Parts: sequence; structure tokens; C-alpha cells
Amino acid sequence: MSLITKICAVTLLFSITTAQAETSIQPFSASKAIDLTHAMHDDMPFWPGGVPFAKEALVTYESGGYLLHKFVMGENTGTHVDAPSHFIEGNLGIDSLPIDQLILPMIVIDVKSKVEANPDYELSTQDVRDWESKYGSIPKDSLVVMNSGWHSKFNDSEKYINMDSDNVMHFPGYSVKAGEYLVKRGVAGIGIDTLSLDHGPSKTFGTHVVMLKANKYQVENMANLDAVPAIGATAVIGVLPIKGGSQAQARIFALIP
Amino acid sequence: MSLITKICAVTLLFSITTAQAETSIQPFSASKAIDLTHAMHDDMPFWPGGVPFAKEALVTYESGGYLLHKFVMGENTGTHVDAPSHFIEGNLGIDSLPIDQLILPMIVIDVKSKVEANPDYELSTQDVRDWESKYGSIPKDSLVVMNSGWHSKFNDSEKYINMDSDNVMHFPGYSVKAGEYLVKRGVAGIGIDTLSLDHGPSKTFGTHVVMLKANKYQVENMANLDAVPAIGATAVIGVLPIKGGSQAQARIFALIP
Repeated sequence: MSLITKICAVTLLFSITTAQAETSIQPFSASKAIDLTHAMHDDMPFWPGGVPFAKEALVTYESGGYLLHKFVMGENTGTHVDAPSHFIEGNLGIDSLPIDQLILPMIVIDVKSKVEANPDYELSTQDVRDWESKYGSIPKDSLVVMNSGWHSKFNDSEKYINMDSDNVMHFPGYSVKAGEYLVKRGVAGIGIDTLSLDHGPSKTFGTHVVMLKANKYQVENMANLDAVPAIGATAVIGVLPIKGGSQAQARIFALIP
Repeated sequence: MSLITKICAVTLLFSITTAQAETSIQPFSASKAIDLTHAMHDDMPFWPGGVPFAKEALVTYESGGYLLHKFVMGENTGTHVDAPSHFIEGNLGIDSLPIDQLILPMIVIDVKSKVEANPDYELSTQDVRDWESKYGSIPKDSLVVMNSGWHSKFNDSEKYINMDSDNVMHFPGYSVKAGEYLVKRGVAGIGIDTLSLDHGPSKTFGTHVVMLKANKYQVENMANLDAVPAIGATAVIGVLPIKGGSQAQARIFALIP
């Protein structure tokens, strides 16, 4: 190879390498952060019949001079992300969610007053339209989060799961129509501060189906949503990249200018 | 209460609530992201004698029409953070690391050429000083990361752990003196792309002791460090906030302007 060919080859190789390694994201600036993650512990609420989070000490200060634990958890315990592969074979898995969909503008739709009147409340298309009339069209490639106020119950499993004597759970969710509307708007994913995107009484998980079929992810059990503005935050979704996983735990921050 | 008193009370309450919920961080801007996390899977390298990562399918598309897993892992498998409580009783636990220490300026010290010549290489105080002579003093409240190049071996456990016939591991780490120097510089934490901050042959974990005693955290098994500039990136360390945990898995991004 001539020197110039060598230089070109090296330059090209370098640009390929760096191009693969870094991903363009929607530009933002930040000077404050809000933690949207519930602390994880053995008494955390979890989906009935599922696998709770458990921490076991393997070595202690007394036994070995340091501390070391083992963790066991269902992939859906605590603040976590559902990948499209959770319901739809062949759709994106939890380790394949594009980075520019994990670091993205976040908007919050507050329906707390409606949930206070009805714990089974389903966020409606009209709720989304009402938000849009104030703040403009839901941005494409954003994370839309429903603030139902339910996150304040997380440290009381019984109230959070809210199961009645017929084993029916009662907590709020998204309506299927609202899910369809948000898919049309081109969101990257949606989130909620309850155990599930579909409200407690759901047996068909219709909103799950709509979102996951459309290759959109879902975030469940989000915390601290009252601190996030309706528009203007950037979410960083630090979900564990588990090969072949369909859901995984995530540390999530909202960053604001 | 008078109306004006009520308004003041509500305003004060709101400002207290938001002040508690949001944390000031060192301001930054971002338009690109780099993933510093190794994908997690059952064949991942782990500390000899420790608990490997394991994923078990509880429900499959065939058995239940959806996919659901259980995860088991030692708290130190994969890309993870050691909290000061890992070694030092009473120091910060993994759920207590301040947010402004998890979102912070990141600097990278590249010692790959030295590691190529010696797999047991220990980053020296002189290596830090050499970095400082080029880029200025190590910033206070930053994350300092050693790029040893070892991250490229992660998908080959045998090469990554690199144990000899006497059961001694061989991989690079930080010297104790460099740890002490970085504590003096006031860093928030340090990171590396190997199984441990202390190099493979260490039996005393001297750098662990120096850092964790000083209430500084450590990040181990970092990925993709060649893509991060020596200075100018912001790290977002999405570590799982496990109550009473002394280490935990993390999704880590480097953000660049």
C-alpha cells in the first residue's frame, strides 16, 4: 500500500470504529437530576405469583472482613423496562434497545386528580390531547410518562398491589386507545408509576400488546414523578443489557437544564 | 390562615418538595452517547469462586404466550460499582451514593501500551501526572477511569481472568500510590476495565482499601473505553439502588457534547 492509502485506511478504520462506538442522541443540557428509581429490597411489591427480589449475604464483615451479596429477582421486579420481546417473539430484546431511545426527551402527563376519584382509572386519548393543547404535539422519539400518583404507595405493598377479595388488583393504567394514539405520535416508549401499563383489573393486557407489537418499550414502577416537569426533561434509562432478556431492572434519571 | 399566608405556605411546601427531589449536578451538554457496559449473559467472566450471572426462563412463548425470566447474580458480576461499604462498615452503601457523584465529569487515562508489555501493570502516580501535564489537574468530584485495553478480552473469560497454573490471576490494576494520589485530588470514584481495581496478583487489595476507606466508589468491568475522550465526557452511572447492597450492577453511559 502507498503511504496515502495506508493513512486513508487507518482513518477509515478509526472512523468506522468510533462511529460504531458512539451514538447520536437528541442534544440536551443538564444541571439538575431527579432519581426516578425505587430503592430495591426484599419487601418490595412484585407481580403476584412472580419472583420477588431477594438479597442474601454470602460474606459479612464478621465472617470475612468485607461484605458480599447474591441477588435473585424476577426480571420484572422493581423499577424496570419491558422490551418488545416480552410479548412479541422477534421484536427488540432488552439488550437491543437503541441507545438513542434510552437517552431521550421525557414528557409527563399528570392524571393524579382522576386517579384519586377512581383507582382503576385509564389514561385516555383525551388526557393526551389535553396535554397537547397546553404544551404542543407529543414529540416523536420521546418517552411519555403517566404520573398517576401511585408511586407514593410503593413502600406499602398491600396498598400498591391493592388486591380485592376476588383477587382482582386495582391500580391505574393506560387505555388501549391512548396507547394507539401514542404509537401514532411515534414515541420511543411509555412509562408509568404502577406495577403495569394496563390497569389492575386487566386480563388482556391490551396496551402491552399495542406498544410491544409496535416495538415500543415500557417502563414500570417509576418513582418520584412529581418532581419532573411536564416537558423539558431528558430521561436516561440505565437498563441492564441482559442478553436475551425480555425485561430488566433499570436505574433511571431525569435530567433538567 | 390569611390568603397570603396560605399562598406562602403552599409555595414553601412546593419549593421544599422539589428541592428534596432534585439534585444539582455539574452542568454539561450532550449530543452523543457511548455505552460503557458489557452485555450480561451466563458465560460472562466472574470473580473465581463467586456467583455467576444466570438467566432462567420461567415462561416462554410456547408455554405461556410471552417471555419471562429470573435472574441470579453475585453483586459483583458484570459491569458494576463497589460501594465504600463493600470493605468498610459504616461507609456509603450502594443505595446511598449521592446522585451528583453518579452523574459527573469523566476522565480517561490510557495505559494500553504499558499493559501490552506487562499484563500485571499497575497504573502509577507518574501515569496520572503525565495525564495532568497534558490536560491539567485531575478535576475534583470526577470519575477517573483507567483504560488498560483489557475490556477487549471480556468475551473470552479465560483470557480475561488469565489465571496461571498456580491459581494467580494476571490483569492490570491501579497501584496503591496512584489511589492515594487520586484521593488527594478529591475524585468521587475511579473505574477500570478489568475484574478488579487491584491488579490480578494482589492478595491485599490495597487500592480497594485506600479508595473505600476514603468513601470513594469503584467501577469494575467497564466496556468500550477506547471510544471515550481523555477529558470532556460526562458519565452517567446507572447503578441499581439496592438497600444495604455493597456492590451492584450498573448501566453506564458516557455523554459527550
